[in-house]
Amino acid sequence: MPVNPEQRAEIAALQAGRGETRRAVVPALEEVLFEPLPVLDHGFVRVVDYMGDDAAVVQAARVSYGRGTRRVSEDAGLIRYLMRHWHTTPFEMCEIKLHVKLPIFVARQWIRHRTANVNEYSARYSILDREFYLPAPEHLAAQSAANRQGREAPLSGAEAEAVLAMLRADAMRSHAHYQEMLNQDADGAVIDPDRRGLARELARMTLPLGTYTQWYWKIDLHNFMHFLRLRADPHAQYEIRAYAEVMLDLLARWVPLTHAAFQDYRLGAATLSAPALEVVRRMLDGEAVSQAESGLSKREWRELMAVLGRPADID
Amino acid sequence: MPVNPEQRAEIAALQAGRGETRRAVVPALEEVLFEPLPVLDHGFVRVVDYMGDDAAVVQAARVSYGRGTRRVSEDAGLIRYLMRHWHTTPFEMCEIKLHVKLPIFVARQWIRHRTANVNEYSARYSILDREFYLPAPEHLAAQSAANRQGREAPLSGAEAEAVLAMLRADAMRSHAHYQEMLNQDADGAVIDPDRRGLARELARMTLPLGTYTQWYWKIDLHNFMHFLRLRADPHAQYEIRAYAEVMLDLLARWVPLTHAAFQDYRLGAATLSAPALEVVRRMLDGEAVSQAESGLSKREWRELMAVLGRPADID
Amino acid sequence: MPVNPEQRAEIAALQAGRGETRRAVVPALEEVLFEPLPVLDHGFVRVVDYMGDDAAVVQAARVSYGRGTRRVSEDAGLIRYLMRHWHTTPFEMCEIKLHVKLPIFVARQWIRHRTANVNEYSARYSILDREFYLPAPEHLAAQSAANRQGREAPLSGAEAEAVLAMLRADAMRSHAHYQEMLNQDADGAVIDPDRRGLARELARMTLPLGTYTQWYWKIDLHNFMHFLRLRADPHAQYEIRAYAEVMLDLLARWVPLTHAAFQDYRLGAATLSAPALEVVRRMLDGEAVSQAESGLSKREWRELMAVLGRPADID
Amino acid sequence: MPVNPEQRAEIAALQAGRGETRRAVVPALEEVLFEPLPVLDHGFVRVVDYMGDDAAVVQAARVSYGRGTRRVSEDAGLIRYLMRHWHTTPFEMCEIKLHVKLPIFVARQWIRHRTANVNEYSARYSILDREFYLPAPEHLAAQSAANRQGREAPLSGAEAEAVLAMLRADAMRSHAHYQEMLNQDADGAVIDPDRRGLARELARMTLPLGTYTQWYWKIDLHNFMHFLRLRADPHAQYEIRAYAEVMLDLLARWVPLTHAAFQDYRLGAATLSAPALEVVRRMLDGEAVSQAESGLSKREWRELMAVLGRPADID
Repeated sequence: MPVNPEQRAEIAALQAGRGETRRAVVPALEEVLFEPLPVLDHGFVRVVDYMGDDAAVVQAARVSYGRGTRRVSEDAGLIRYLMRHWHTTPFEMCEIKLHVKLPIFVARQWIRHRTANVNEYSARYSILDREFYLPAPEHLAAQSAANRQGREAPLSGAEAEAVLAMLRADAMRSHAHYQEMLNQDADGAVIDPDRRGLARELARMTLPLGTYTQWYWKIDLHNFMHFLRLRADPHAQYEIRAYAEVMLDLLARWVPLTHAAFQDYRLGAATLSAPALEVVRRMLDGEAVSQAESGLSKREWRELMAVLGRPADID
Repeated sequence: MPVNPEQRAEIAALQAGRGETRRAVVPALEEVLFEPLPVLDHGFVRVVDYMGDDAAVVQAARVSYGRGTRRVSEDAGLIRYLMRHWHTTPFEMCEIKLHVKLPIFVARQWIRHRTANVNEYSARYSILDREFYLPAPEHLAAQSAANRQGREAPLSGAEAEAVLAMLRADAMRSHAHYQEMLNQDADGAVIDPDRRGLARELARMTLPLGTYTQWYWKIDLHNFMHFLRLRADPHAQYEIRAYAEVMLDLLARWVPLTHAAFQDYRLGAATLSAPALEVVRRMLDGEAVSQAESGLSKREWRELMAVLGRPADID
Repeated sequence: MPVNPEQRAEIAALQAGRGETRRAVVPALEEVLFEPLPVLDHGFVRVVDYMGDDAAVVQAARVSYGRGTRRVSEDAGLIRYLMRHWHTTPFEMCEIKLHVKLPIFVARQWIRHRTANVNEYSARYSILDREFYLPAPEHLAAQSAANRQGREAPLSGAEAEAVLAMLRADAMRSHAHYQEMLNQDADGAVIDPDRRGLARELARMTLPLGTYTQWYWKIDLHNFMHFLRLRADPHAQYEIRAYAEVMLDLLARWVPLTHAAFQDYRLGAATLSAPALEVVRRMLDGEAVSQAESGLSKREWRELMAVLGRPADID
Repeated sequence: MPVNPEQRAEIAALQAGRGETRRAVVPALEEVLFEPLPVLDHGFVRVVDYMGDDAAVVQAARVSYGRGTRRVSEDAGLIRYLMRHWHTTPFEMCEIKLHVKLPIFVARQWIRHRTANVNEYSARYSILDREFYLPAPEHLAAQSAANRQGREAPLSGAEAEAVLAMLRADAMRSHAHYQEMLNQDADGAVIDPDRRGLARELARMTLPLGTYTQWYWKIDLHNFMHFLRLRADPHAQYEIRAYAEVMLDLLARWVPLTHAAFQDYRLGAATLSAPALEVVRRMLDGEAVSQAESGLSKREWRELMAVLGRPADID
């Protein structure tokens, strides 16, 4: 359960609030405001605040281009134009703030995106709950033999069970030791009055990387899309992709025109290298190009054929 | 006049809008939302959007410190604590978006603050109006003899008049040439159908640095205060300080607790170097320390005595 | 002439220096170190310092991938792989520092790239020389009718001459007024002992945007390429493109493997949107797709056909 | 042992290299180039590359101030002036690149400094060694009762032994499970040919936060000092402070003039708030100010008295 009853009550109170504003309001996002959207077994994403909407992107672009944009009559067309030509600054004019609960090893990937603001729960000050990530059976995948950072199909029965048992046992025992070192039980009571308890900032180091942490994370719309492009990608680790997918839905609620352009010009787009473009031009001229004479490596050839929806015959 | 009747009507329409939101609302800032607050002779600052309030700073801090912050019962106390100890990330959780009209030479100082988002009016796309900055007589100051980047008292009558006449004449003539090169008059009509007109991106280069430009500028609360600390400082050039002072008032409206802490721990504070602290300790012990035996340079001695509110006798 | 005899002597002294280092050295870049490479009529770019080389990119990548990269035996292959898959952090591990002299209106475009370090000549402290940009006749282009930010062919004789005369006259007169307001002649001597002279920070505002300024500019290799991709693009204004082209040559000297990959995967590459890819797939299947039934706008259709090297027949 | 014999040989080869350069060379830093300087039980910091020296800071400042800086004849004086007045951009003109081996919980604090470049060893691609941090007895400290993020004196014998035993047992067993889940022993051999092995990106999540990781980390001199100011501070966790202290020594080798100014104006300096300054002024006027009538909280009063080297009597 991602939130406890106390938190649930706090969220309900926030959701009951209503204020009047002259600022842009996005009803579809207001609907889910403060609501924890579940991810993985104990995680969540919830929108805590936002600023701006599709119209704010358009307005910022019109400031830049001045009277020059009067000809582009529609917002959707202008947003598509901005996206297509990588005019990124108007998208920086909107912000979203999320509260995220996530395993530490996911947090470590996530934090590599530097253009964002973060306040993370501090295990120097406070004690971490006994919550850790255990993959569902269908995500307990084998190491890929072909791709060093990839996964293959899920492990089969006995091996999967053994793995889950080890993950659970390590996490449970480490957390029990954590409490014992802190000399404090789950209710915060002192275990042994004759002991002093290890400093929190040290005791945490015995906890596994699958332990859940949480943070507030704020980012502008341009960098939010950049994050999603990298983390909703099939090459991203499943566990961070699960978060990215929930956030993609939030993007669609928040800025539907921008989301549609993002689908066409980023998520569904492909960049072809100079040699790949040359191959496509030859093929369109009716030439039967083979990998061997394409100038592309086998790997690039396969990637190109996948993009073009053609078989990647390699002799 | 900073805005024309068309813009005035557009602003009135925005100000008439009302929406319902579950987000934090700051009534004192809503009051001035969209309103151009005049700065210099043709400039303005107007708040276009904002996100968060004092409570958002507190909430972000409580996420970091977890249950550890329950002891700090008051928001004001926690904000002062964060400010005093340079815990800056909670202040990054709020954003403000401004529309600013300002002379280009001011814009060139302003843009040096990199941690902000900007959409500037583009003179590649559109034509700049004939608006340029002419200092009021009390700001038409002489070069300081003591400080290479400083000003002294205003120029006296005849010199001031001569300077103003040159500034005005250069600006008027350059703008007339600008239009002539563009082959387009003030109403946008072609001047001479037999000429093609110089590209806008080139014609602009004859305009003086005192010409007004405008931009949307978005920044988080932490970096906003950093900007204000540098630009509301007496050493900042008067023209950018005039903007900073209007923005300080906006800060007070937006986040009054943060503004009060900012006054005490930043604007009104002073950093004493290790040698300066040593001098203060000796003075508090009753010793009559002179500059010569202080280990400080004359300049640092004067700065320290000013901070301490004491005469800077130097033998 | 971009540099004066005094500066020439200083540069020669720097170039004569030799030190012994254990760091990576790039002889092809050392050859041009400190040398001002001319751009436009008075501008230059000169490399002042650098850190790292192609091997430093590879080394950083191998730290990330650990033993996992042993299979990629060649540096060139690994660099191409990193570039193709947008693994950008290894390219951030190299730095270059340039001294650039450039017109202020170019500097205003340039500074929009925020991920760089800058020290600009300050006209608050010091006096600007009488150097301003005058386009060569072939760059004195007419405004494009089709594209609001574009240029067409050069202006013809009489119009060009008139424009040049205005640009020159404005610049000369503004600089003469600048000196008069400062009460200081070209040799730094006081003009009229009875006047006090306007503060430098104010006098500068009468100078035109074509005046030359200069700065030290430091950037990492990843962001350097990002800058070059945007500014060496045909849509960039000619004047900044002239700088980008000199810097592209420096890139080739500094990191030849990275430069080659950059040509293939960035400069010569094209991004096809989801609908554009669909068109290409249909065409490869032998279908005769027309713009009308392509789902692309006319503008996007023309862009796609240009990329594919095919005629853009639109009914 | 922080490095293995293979790495030792590689380092020796790098250290034997010699190249000729026209760039600035810092012999004191070259001396320790590539050398792993030990930190904690298995960690290290080693300088891998650098760019610039004290003179580069001065040169950048002189570009900004132009002829205006001719009066400041000495480099040391100019550097102290820049540091005192927070003119930070000239310090951004130097870079240092470090290879650091550090426990993951330290890496998580470290990475919060966003203005740096990082390539971290990836446990998606490669397998982590069985190296984890075990505090020396004198650092196995009790939780502070007064300060939620602080430590007190070390734990005494029996408690310390019990804690160490738990830390060691958790780390050993987790790493054994890690290998078992990967189905790969310490030499990289497959354990059980009938099992497929869990994906690396998943198996890592059972490892404790005390496990060592490593990265290349590059930062400019200004941000390096900002990092050191925060992390060499007595309030920083001991384990990251141990790294900061080694880096402070590197700073002194690299840019001795900057290091001296940093000591005086940052590390040894103190910022006094507006109310604290008022107290100091009253004390210097001979008044006997007490905490009660100072307007300062008890905590701020104690902090101020500590800075002033006076007893903090509170009634």
